[in-house]
Amino acid sequence: MNTMDIHQLPAPADIREAAERIAGVARRTPVWSSPALDEAAGAELHFKCEPMQLTGAFKVRGALNAVLSMSDAQAKKGVATHSSGNHGAALAFAARERGIPCTVVMPDNSVKSKVANVRRYGAEVVFCEPSQASREDTVADVVERTGAEVIPPYDDARIIAGQGTCALELLEQVPELDVLVVPVGGGGLITGTAIAARSLAPGIGIRGAEPAGSDDAARSLSAGRRITDITPDTVCDGLRAIISELTFRGIRDNVDGIITVEDDATIDAMRLAWLELKLTIEPSSAVVLAAVLAEPDAFRDRSVGVILSGGNVDLDHLPW
Amino acid sequence: MNTMDIHQLPAPADIREAAERIAGVARRTPVWSSPALDEAAGAELHFKCEPMQLTGAFKVRGALNAVLSMSDAQAKKGVATHSSGNHGAALAFAARERGIPCTVVMPDNSVKSKVANVRRYGAEVVFCEPSQASREDTVADVVERTGAEVIPPYDDARIIAGQGTCALELLEQVPELDVLVVPVGGGGLITGTAIAARSLAPGIGIRGAEPAGSDDAARSLSAGRRITDITPDTVCDGLRAIISELTFRGIRDNVDGIITVEDDATIDAMRLAWLELKLTIEPSSAVVLAAVLAEPDAFRDRSVGVILSGGNVDLDHLPW
Repeated sequence: MNTMDIHQLPAPADIREAAERIAGVARRTPVWSSPALDEAAGAELHFKCEPMQLTGAFKVRGALNAVLSMSDAQAKKGVATHSSGNHGAALAFAARERGIPCTVVMPDNSVKSKVANVRRYGAEVVFCEPSQASREDTVADVVERTGAEVIPPYDDARIIAGQGTCALELLEQVPELDVLVVPVGGGGLITGTAIAARSLAPGIGIRGAEPAGSDDAARSLSAGRRITDITPDTVCDGLRAIISELTFRGIRDNVDGIITVEDDATIDAMRLAWLELKLTIEPSSAVVLAAVLAEPDAFRDRSVGVILSGGNVDLDHLPW
Repeated sequence: MNTMDIHQLPAPADIREAAERIAGVARRTPVWSSPALDEAAGAELHFKCEPMQLTGAFKVRGALNAVLSMSDAQAKKGVATHSSGNHGAALAFAARERGIPCTVVMPDNSVKSKVANVRRYGAEVVFCEPSQASREDTVADVVERTGAEVIPPYDDARIIAGQGTCALELLEQVPELDVLVVPVGGGGLITGTAIAARSLAPGIGIRGAEPAGSDDAARSLSAGRRITDITPDTVCDGLRAIISELTFRGIRDNVDGIITVEDDATIDAMRLAWLELKLTIEPSSAVVLAAVLAEPDAFRDRSVGVILSGGNVDLDHLPW
């Protein structure tokens, strides 16, 4: 992987290497089901439970793969990123695992629990103003000061390969899946998933689920080029990112379509998952269940792998 | 089992028979863990996830065992019980599974979601006044009208044997456990657990966890006789029952002690489980995690089986 171009899409072999690299650190998360949800969907739903992943989200797979594949010389200078969400905690965790410094730049209006979640794994938090310019300037300052390598949340082949390990696992656990449904934020998870799954099951369907209020991927697929002029407005705080050129190519070439979902349907699906699966999934995961329930004809009587991406919620501010 | 005296404690063989009887219907629930909770407890905690059991609680094990062991002649007249909680839904589920009628007497101030949960499995709900006398009179009316057999929530060897199947499973999944911690309400689960676990691992410790506001079992153990003059006052709605003479004997002869827990600690533990395990456990399950955290010296460095009994919560009325 060290010789791989991180600005290109990973190959299936890169994802298998990532799986070996992170084995024994990342958890093999369970797959669970619910007769009531199967009945509601008219399909056989197999939920891959990444809320139970370390740090509470799949993000640690990519972060570990990136951090563990750095050279010793680069690694000792540390890593940095900007994040107001799960990627920051995942990178902090991965850096602690390798024993190297980590700095996470967070907007000064970040949710306290997210800041605490980054600090919990020993990373330094540097606050910035809540603008993209301030985020990038502040990260640049950190890099100049420390020589740290910036590990982005999705626009990096090592990250995409790491996220793809989740689908490798799922297809080992439940080999006979007809279709996978995956949430779409920055596009790293769905791109890695599609490349991994197609390498094992060439005919498998890959569907994205995206909030209607942050539907840049769906619009980009329709337009045949990346659409970036949207202002994300959705309860799915993990899916407000805009796909990159790299993940756009990954999605365009590997994904069978994206279902967009209104927040009301996502919140209903989140409640349903809490009640029936007994899992505290976050809105960014509930969007996939909402998508399956919204388009039953696409999934009826099929065996569906539903990737629940994370479970980091603020219990004092539930969306219902 | 048909020849067994339902007013005596079940033998280990009865629990093994129950396991065979309910296999293929009741779910084999997963066992899960959390590095953060292990660190908090200073112990290795293995959580048996009965919130993921059908109907959302372990109760279906006992109800299935009772209903599936009835003679055809008795079964066709149906079953009845009074319940404002998980046992009613469990019995309704078991009766539907056998294809026989079920009537559940519920106080007319029951929580709507609990009523819906019973009706969902096809049982008839008959309302009564919220007093013990009205409950019993109304059940007697149902029995006179239908000839149904009353299946009590815990004071019955078939129920206790069914609940014990959970521990058989847990010890297959994680053989090397030093101690089990089990919630105590009416005492059916802990009695079945103790008999099952001791038959496989004679030296295993069995600890109960009971809300301080409904500590009849702890008081009864101290007094050496059943204490019943308490008025339950606890957030643990599943643990307000009073142990019977039968379950008192089961606890007295098989349990190493009961840890009582204040509701504040239970609510903190419930939040912690939601955040770290990502499971929507109910207060009656959280009491066991609270007990482990409250008495760390009893569990330090040990391998602990923690039975999470159920996950039926009202998401609109969370206790924090």
